[in-house]
Amino acid sequence: MSEKDFEEKLREVEQFEINNDTSIIDLINSLKNTGFNAKRLALACEIYNEMINNTDCVKFFGLAGALVPVGLQRIIFDFLKEGFIDVLVTTGANLTHDLAEALGYHHLQGNINIDDIDDKDLHCKDINRIYDVFMPNKVYEGIEDFISKLNISDNQMPVSSFLKFLGDKLPKTSHSILRICAEKEIPIFCPAFTDSGLAMQLGFHHQNMNLNHFKDMLDMVNLAWDAKNAGICIVGGGVPKNFIMQSLQFCPTSATYAIQITMDRPEPGGLSGASLREAISWGKVNEKAKYSTVISDATITLPLIFWYLKKMQEKNKD
Amino acid sequence: MSEKDFEEKLREVEQFEINNDTSIIDLINSLKNTGFNAKRLALACEIYNEMINNTDCVKFFGLAGALVPVGLQRIIFDFLKEGFIDVLVTTGANLTHDLAEALGYHHLQGNINIDDIDDKDLHCKDINRIYDVFMPNKVYEGIEDFISKLNISDNQMPVSSFLKFLGDKLPKTSHSILRICAEKEIPIFCPAFTDSGLAMQLGFHHQNMNLNHFKDMLDMVNLAWDAKNAGICIVGGGVPKNFIMQSLQFCPTSATYAIQITMDRPEPGGLSGASLREAISWGKVNEKAKYSTVISDATITLPLIFWYLKKMQEKNKD
Amino acid sequence: MSEKDFEEKLREVEQFEINNDTSIIDLINSLKNTGFNAKRLALACEIYNEMINNTDCVKFFGLAGALVPVGLQRIIFDFLKEGFIDVLVTTGANLTHDLAEALGYHHLQGNINIDDIDDKDLHCKDINRIYDVFMPNKVYEGIEDFISKLNISDNQMPVSSFLKFLGDKLPKTSHSILRICAEKEIPIFCPAFTDSGLAMQLGFHHQNMNLNHFKDMLDMVNLAWDAKNAGICIVGGGVPKNFIMQSLQFCPTSATYAIQITMDRPEPGGLSGASLREAISWGKVNEKAKYSTVISDATITLPLIFWYLKKMQEKNKD
Amino acid sequence: MSEKDFEEKLREVEQFEINNDTSIIDLINSLKNTGFNAKRLALACEIYNEMINNTDCVKFFGLAGALVPVGLQRIIFDFLKEGFIDVLVTTGANLTHDLAEALGYHHLQGNINIDDIDDKDLHCKDINRIYDVFMPNKVYEGIEDFISKLNISDNQMPVSSFLKFLGDKLPKTSHSILRICAEKEIPIFCPAFTDSGLAMQLGFHHQNMNLNHFKDMLDMVNLAWDAKNAGICIVGGGVPKNFIMQSLQFCPTSATYAIQITMDRPEPGGLSGASLREAISWGKVNEKAKYSTVISDATITLPLIFWYLKKMQEKNKD
Repeated sequence: MSEKDFEEKLREVEQFEINNDTSIIDLINSLKNTGFNAKRLALACEIYNEMINNTDCVKFFGLAGALVPVGLQRIIFDFLKEGFIDVLVTTGANLTHDLAEALGYHHLQGNINIDDIDDKDLHCKDINRIYDVFMPNKVYEGIEDFISKLNISDNQMPVSSFLKFLGDKLPKTSHSILRICAEKEIPIFCPAFTDSGLAMQLGFHHQNMNLNHFKDMLDMVNLAWDAKNAGICIVGGGVPKNFIMQSLQFCPTSATYAIQITMDRPEPGGLSGASLREAISWGKVNEKAKYSTVISDATITLPLIFWYLKKMQEKNKD
Repeated sequence: MSEKDFEEKLREVEQFEINNDTSIIDLINSLKNTGFNAKRLALACEIYNEMINNTDCVKFFGLAGALVPVGLQRIIFDFLKEGFIDVLVTTGANLTHDLAEALGYHHLQGNINIDDIDDKDLHCKDINRIYDVFMPNKVYEGIEDFISKLNISDNQMPVSSFLKFLGDKLPKTSHSILRICAEKEIPIFCPAFTDSGLAMQLGFHHQNMNLNHFKDMLDMVNLAWDAKNAGICIVGGGVPKNFIMQSLQFCPTSATYAIQITMDRPEPGGLSGASLREAISWGKVNEKAKYSTVISDATITLPLIFWYLKKMQEKNKD
Repeated sequence: MSEKDFEEKLREVEQFEINNDTSIIDLINSLKNTGFNAKRLALACEIYNEMINNTDCVKFFGLAGALVPVGLQRIIFDFLKEGFIDVLVTTGANLTHDLAEALGYHHLQGNINIDDIDDKDLHCKDINRIYDVFMPNKVYEGIEDFISKLNISDNQMPVSSFLKFLGDKLPKTSHSILRICAEKEIPIFCPAFTDSGLAMQLGFHHQNMNLNHFKDMLDMVNLAWDAKNAGICIVGGGVPKNFIMQSLQFCPTSATYAIQITMDRPEPGGLSGASLREAISWGKVNEKAKYSTVISDATITLPLIFWYLKKMQEKNKD
Repeated sequence: MSEKDFEEKLREVEQFEINNDTSIIDLINSLKNTGFNAKRLALACEIYNEMINNTDCVKFFGLAGALVPVGLQRIIFDFLKEGFIDVLVTTGANLTHDLAEALGYHHLQGNINIDDIDDKDLHCKDINRIYDVFMPNKVYEGIEDFISKLNISDNQMPVSSFLKFLGDKLPKTSHSILRICAEKEIPIFCPAFTDSGLAMQLGFHHQNMNLNHFKDMLDMVNLAWDAKNAGICIVGGGVPKNFIMQSLQFCPTSATYAIQITMDRPEPGGLSGASLREAISWGKVNEKAKYSTVISDATITLPLIFWYLKKMQEKNKD
């Protein structure tokens, strides 16, 4: 970096204030002139907003982590409803839990100190634990009942087609990810589908299921191929991250926007924590891309990002 | 936990919504009925608010991490100004950077990718780096000039008295931590004071400095001893955390409220990441205490907590 | 815990010594009487050794993370060769890199500071980065060539059958995971197979591939169902962890031994970092199981565990 | 980096083997040709060995974290005894626990699952917890008794002089850090001394203690100033890290060797996790320095490093 470059790029850190009139947009704008993860969060907000305003941009969203059980189903539903996501890649677990909520079941939480939990006791009570949220095992019975009664015409359809089929059967009143994706024809990919309670019920109750995972893989490559511009938002990492990334090698421009929210870090070499910069070497992220990784629990920062985007949409309308 | 206890404590996870009318209070209230770090953040907000409303509670605040250089000086200033902190324990580094800002110097940040930074180049330019914020080395010259001209009557006063003396000399217009503490007579303790640029300048320019660290230690014990009730907020851990904790063993009730914001974790056994529950075994935290540790970067969550507290104060006034 | 229980269980921490005669067995035995992750590592070694010596125990091994590119292919090969693994579940990425090494290609590393890497430059040179190891993109051409020439008789076979078919074609002299598993008839499951370079080449060059993921899922459940006893070793988490865990709900005894090596932590609620204790609530791990999670980079601790196990085997022979 | 540079620096990753003849030196040598933290560990071993063999190099060692209670007192004792440390900077906590062990007390550990611990119960039993090791509170009574009877001639001596005075009083048979430092005249600095149980007993039982922290600070600067060459090994971060770092700005060459073992990471901006590269901008680490940060629990890697160094010493003698 040249002397001039450097000096042009540096500005004073602003010791920002929060007062009675502060809005989420003010907060994010203030954080932008700071550093550490606060600044990364502000950049992520700004980049996502640009992705939304760029009508050429196909927005790929990778979702790993138990965000449905913990209470963020509605936020993700609204990301989809607002048009902030064009292609969703997620885990079988999130879809299983989404189905549970769509069928009227609920996850549980409470004023219980994590250290006071006795897992042996929970096991006796048939309550499954996901850190500090819980799912009574009987929820699976409801899922089983629902899945076993499905009339599946084609046992070799792509997983994404099956998920669309499933979404169409869910109550219009629910805030289900499956349902809104079906309604809005947003493709959902789930590359590790058989790694889920949902797929297990399907395999147990329907003979000779062989949903086509390869067709999904090729369809995803085509979506990337056809994108004039690609933007990605990765929550948590895992298979959804890699599946999006491997497809982006086939996107003419690679990703020109990239956001990542994760608690994982680069040093142990796993993909979940890999920096977005690393993806430039692979041609998955464009070398001129705007990108930001926020090291944070998504349960805190994803709602903040949504809140910011929603307010920016409202502001743009005025 | 008895069956009944358990069932009474469990409630449904709420799939919360963010809409155009959402306020920070709504958000935090929503997060309370979720899990993971979102819930811990909501609990931390609620606990801090209770600490403030409990007029018997002495609020100890431990601050480690480079929060002044990164732009949170004003937030901490406002925590102090609003009366949310009764005793501050911090690092010499934060005080050095606070002094720099008070004297009119600024830290720098910018649109610079952390990976593009060349530290050898920065060294040539005499710019010191703190992750993605920067301090030109010449700032130290300003601090040196200021410190060297001080007329210090007693070279054996407690560190906290010296910090009060320093704060009184700073411009009334600045948002300095030292200044507001001096003005409001909020004691600042800095147990590792000689581990700072500020102390080095003091030692270089004033013969035979021997500020009394033991007197501070005993004064802090007395503050804990006299507290009818204690509440603690720990940002980042380190010496400030331990110094507060060791004193609380002498508080008749131990801490009855405890909040911790850190990226450190318990497993490697260091104090910074130690759980607040562990402090119960030592008698530092009361066994009936309300406590919450938020695993997060304080640059994101400390402003949110302040925003919530400020709005709750405003609401209570109505 | 009763007073007596407690006192019986507590012993002195031993301030252990390393001297000229120290062996890996001595080291691990010493670490057992300490705490933090050192003790967890010692417990993991001891538990794995018990799994091996228990002839009724089916040993499930979940492998995520880029361990083949980084140089641990041979260690995993030897785990398999020595009979320390009965069922392997891994990522498509590890299999892709294993195939590359088996075909005579190599990953690269070097005396390069991670901060001096320019990913744009790497992209120009067609070198893909995985933290601080590298793979020239032309390796994919070799894989493509190999895969495109395969004569695949059944495009609907299970993924595990395809992996056996592949392993049988690889050079007997290589230290390939695929090859040794084929030779020793150790099943490999790869639930997210289409999330890999290997599967992409397969999909591009062979029409109508639809390898059966559901059959694998059911086969895995049967393996768990038939196990008199189950032991698990999870490296890194991810889909391999969950796939093993979901199957163990069908194991009559659940897992009675469980080891986990990961840098992930429980607090953000994701499965990779979830405690093994949590799995008790689900009936995946037995309530009387011996278990240990080592928070560490597997590149350091997996070789240590192997070294210990190998030496214990040798010792037992004497 | 030029094309040629790059290619010269890159070598193949070696898929290393562990067999019956493997020694710790073989293992570390093998890890050097891998990546991730395994390679960083191998580099750390190699760098430390060079520090030892460079007779001009003053070896500064910063020790934070509860390594004495957990059972690494003897390893640190042996680092000191073997001449691997020239200047020690540590926390008051480690010295307090070292004194306890030196006086014949012991820390406790046991076959107790961390999740089954009830801290309220421990509090009733007067047992203090440090993650999964324990210290009966009565140990403090022994420390109190010892400290209260000391005949301290000068209540304004530097902390380091007091620590020497203390070490000289401890049993020759103990493996105490304080004792071996006193015997070998290795200076110990403890900048946050009053943040410890040891200092509290001193303050309670001896009137008008005012040990001189400023003198220590200046002495440390002089040690750095006089060093022809400096090497640093940082365990855990915290005040010991910063205290060494701030002094090294006065070392004519800055540090030319630097090792760091920590679980902390750079992104949240705190000093403990700051990269060693960042220290180049400050002039604390030389721009030509060899350096390596190992992201790991020191309870696992510090013994490995010691084992390697000890064997290398033995090998060099042959």
